[in-house]
Amino acid sequence: MITLSDVRAAATVIAPHVVRTPLLPFGRGWLKPENLQPVGAFKLRGALNALARLENRANGVVAYSSGNHAQAVAFAARLHGVPAVIVMPDNTPPVKVEATRALGAEVHVVGITERVERAQALVAERGAALIPPFDHPDVIAGQGTIGLEIVEDLPDVGVVVVPMSGGGLISGVATAVKSLRPDVRVVGAEPALAADIAESLARGELVRWDPFRRAETVADALRDEPSELTWSHISKYVDDVVTVSEDEIHRAMTDLVRRARLVAEPSGAVAVAAAAKLGEGVAVVSGGNVDPALLARLLAA
Amino acid sequence: MITLSDVRAAATVIAPHVVRTPLLPFGRGWLKPENLQPVGAFKLRGALNALARLENRANGVVAYSSGNHAQAVAFAARLHGVPAVIVMPDNTPPVKVEATRALGAEVHVVGITERVERAQALVAERGAALIPPFDHPDVIAGQGTIGLEIVEDLPDVGVVVVPMSGGGLISGVATAVKSLRPDVRVVGAEPALAADIAESLARGELVRWDPFRRAETVADALRDEPSELTWSHISKYVDDVVTVSEDEIHRAMTDLVRRARLVAEPSGAVAVAAAAKLGEGVAVVSGGNVDPALLARLLAA
Repeated sequence: MITLSDVRAAATVIAPHVVRTPLLPFGRGWLKPENLQPVGAFKLRGALNALARLENRANGVVAYSSGNHAQAVAFAARLHGVPAVIVMPDNTPPVKVEATRALGAEVHVVGITERVERAQALVAERGAALIPPFDHPDVIAGQGTIGLEIVEDLPDVGVVVVPMSGGGLISGVATAVKSLRPDVRVVGAEPALAADIAESLARGELVRWDPFRRAETVADALRDEPSELTWSHISKYVDDVVTVSEDEIHRAMTDLVRRARLVAEPSGAVAVAAAAKLGEGVAVVSGGNVDPALLARLLAA
Repeated sequence: MITLSDVRAAATVIAPHVVRTPLLPFGRGWLKPENLQPVGAFKLRGALNALARLENRANGVVAYSSGNHAQAVAFAARLHGVPAVIVMPDNTPPVKVEATRALGAEVHVVGITERVERAQALVAERGAALIPPFDHPDVIAGQGTIGLEIVEDLPDVGVVVVPMSGGGLISGVATAVKSLRPDVRVVGAEPALAADIAESLARGELVRWDPFRRAETVADALRDEPSELTWSHISKYVDDVVTVSEDEIHRAMTDLVRRARLVAEPSGAVAVAAAAKLGEGVAVVSGGNVDPALLARLLAA
């Protein structure tokens, strides 16, 4: 498991390259707007830390992702002058494929079942290093820098609300927050349609949901499930889970536009929806890469 | 005219109550997202400074505005426990009237030609103090704190792009920036349909456009004109003006959603549109209180 000093070290490494996002007052709580990072998501923090700490990166890095991790790794690699290959499933929206290419990455589009295999083949062929989306201590430590910043900016914080999927974000944030301030409540937020971690915490053991079941939520970045590594952090640190409906996610997205002037993707609004139900807390707005047509429909409704 | 020390003093006064907005990388330039302030606009800075510096505020404050200044004064007054009366013209969207009332202000809705008279009558009746939207040194000094922050966060800044209307924002920002760094170019941004300051600077004297002519731009917060006080700052400090078309304003709004995950009102996107034409610069995103239906139409197009 990672420690506070891993997170502090990550903060030093990534500081020159990430936005120091402010806390924004919102209702009776606060927002931590990670959608304002250069690639539009917190993922940049973990990718930057992982890449910076690679011992041998001359042969480049490989990642598989259809989402924000793809652009985060491409961005971090370009920054460090390292070649990046991103394997994306063939159901990835073309706009995301183009955005990843525009960051200088070599993109391989493959059938969804082949993506891990292809990534591993690329690692073997090229001697490149794989940067996983969440199942790595350096990635988790990078995401944890968000927790450091929250405690620094709001010393009397009471509740922190963090979206959960693979669990990298909440593992890092919870480690930082609980190490500094054990009295702060760390609450995970999940779509009710992908609430496998809520069920796991209720049962006291990691429960796996069918991927097709988890895929039903509009929150497309929250359809993953924890690894053993992230589960060990979650089961140790997370106090509670709040699940939210699809309607509550949509309402949080329009609330963010109207009241915070922020664009969030569905997954990025899940913690905001959960904090609204709690009536308090710092909600991490994890990402803002939404299909403009979806946002237009929600705003017109 | 105000000085750098007025701006520094304002920064100390308002710091506890405003968001320290970060600079966000955007294309080849940067954004200063003042739409993230609690009332959704930079206006909070000037209103807070003016109210804090009032010697006799026990009888409350009065402002006339249909826009962001109304909510800024209401917010600042509530914060200081001072009664606020806001006079709004009867063509103000009901949602803005409600938002101002929700901040605890007493709102008087009057015919557009009566608003100044009514505000002055309220000042006389109640012994309250008028907080003008831009024509006051304390208001200008408050807005100038944005300039201090830009130079602090980006010491090698080359160009700062600021929207112009009554001129309070650019007067303050230019005073701060030019006092600290005379080599930085301060560029004003105006809608081509309300480019009275561009014409004034070209002629070397303050030119007044018919208000009905200025009202044609979609940038409804940029339909005002400078006072003698703001003109004296503008004519001294502003290096250049870039005017933008209505289409360029709309395109900047959708670019901000897609590439910066920020919601800007039309006026708030004018400096972004101008910076895009320059190909560089820190653009001040001045406000984000947009009609959601307009944003939906632009995103769906």
